[in-house]
Amino acid sequence: MNSQAEDHGHHISQQFNSELEAVKNHMMEMGGAVEKQLSDALTSVVDADSGLGKRIMKEDDEIDAMELKIDEECSLILARRQPAASDLRLVLAIIKTVRDLERIGDESAKIARMGVKLSEEGEFPEGFVEFKHLGKNVASLVGNALDAFARYDAEAALAVAQADADVDKEYGSATRSMITYMMEDPRSISRVLNLLWALRALERIGDHAKNIAEHVIYLVKGMDVRHENLDNLADQIVDAE
Amino acid sequence: MNSQAEDHGHHISQQFNSELEAVKNHMMEMGGAVEKQLSDALTSVVDADSGLGKRIMKEDDEIDAMELKIDEECSLILARRQPAASDLRLVLAIIKTVRDLERIGDESAKIARMGVKLSEEGEFPEGFVEFKHLGKNVASLVGNALDAFARYDAEAALAVAQADADVDKEYGSATRSMITYMMEDPRSISRVLNLLWALRALERIGDHAKNIAEHVIYLVKGMDVRHENLDNLADQIVDAE
Repeated sequence: MNSQAEDHGHHISQQFNSELEAVKNHMMEMGGAVEKQLSDALTSVVDADSGLGKRIMKEDDEIDAMELKIDEECSLILARRQPAASDLRLVLAIIKTVRDLERIGDESAKIARMGVKLSEEGEFPEGFVEFKHLGKNVASLVGNALDAFARYDAEAALAVAQADADVDKEYGSATRSMITYMMEDPRSISRVLNLLWALRALERIGDHAKNIAEHVIYLVKGMDVRHENLDNLADQIVDAE
Repeated sequence: MNSQAEDHGHHISQQFNSELEAVKNHMMEMGGAVEKQLSDALTSVVDADSGLGKRIMKEDDEIDAMELKIDEECSLILARRQPAASDLRLVLAIIKTVRDLERIGDESAKIARMGVKLSEEGEFPEGFVEFKHLGKNVASLVGNALDAFARYDAEAALAVAQADADVDKEYGSATRSMITYMMEDPRSISRVLNLLWALRALERIGDHAKNIAEHVIYLVKGMDVRHENLDNLADQIVDAE
């Protein structure tokens, strides 16, 4: 490491720690805002509430601004503090996580757009139950991924990565139901497609939750586990204990 | 910035430069591999070539491995060299760009999967012309974004960001055509949906090309331009000349 830096002693390093803590807190705040965005987007579809849907599409700007701010804080820490080892991993994990959070916000805004369209059509399409169910599961993945980050819990993160596979399966079966609905009633095609896009957005959000979980594992275990087979991964995480 | 580091003199800084150059070259190689992946994926759909489609799905692993390697090189540079200013921006832009490249590889693999399905169905669906056209435009966006990075050309990057809006429009109109095809012939629904997913993957690839262009602008101009209005952006880039 840098022995010069260590000579500056305890004071500098405490200040550095609180900078790291602050940027992590900002990321968690952004996470909270994104979770609220997603939960409101789900409600806007379920209640066909176009007012709520429109508000969410607007709030997406605030989440974008949070991403830029945190990204800049991270760049400043890298430039000024030159972190190493686990501190560097924390900064890099935050840079990557805020990008996933921003995408979750984007996908939530897309879902809200579908909520507005569905409310204009004034009718609940088939496939509504599938949407509600998948939405609930995906929202809990996002929440669990953020909790795992807050607590630096690699095992909880691994559970999120594994649960994403169930979301993908559920999404596949919901998609097949939608195709059946469209074939049975071709006049419903455009309406059911809107729900299909909303389901797809949920599946994407599940992927981003999985990405965040992988950033947590990288941060805690120092292993880059993207593209790893999940069974091997579970072994490695246990081995590394 | 760090006067200690400068005392080490020319030799260290030359070594550092060649490390930066090397990681940038690795990113450009990854870019080349991803471009080939996309172009093969387009061919697999257009020629309904299931052999080619299957090969592409396999090659996605190599691209994933490239991403991890480059990411690790960047972490090492950050930890050991503690870059500042434009060097730091270069490393951060590379970290972000390889992630976009990896996603382009993923989306290409999805398109290849559709190529395999379409070849099994043994029939060209409606919407084939739209797909070919959008595919060509998106591939050129990716190529132009990478060229802009190679030449640190912010204006070329801005042109990519602007052209992505045309891709989005074209995607919207292709989607509407697909809906019409499905309504006219409900038996085609599942087949046309496959093409719809492939179109959606192309639209996503266009978004990632735009992201790469934004990383180039950040790198060259030091401005974070994500979420900016493109007209304002053009003014800023000209003002900054």
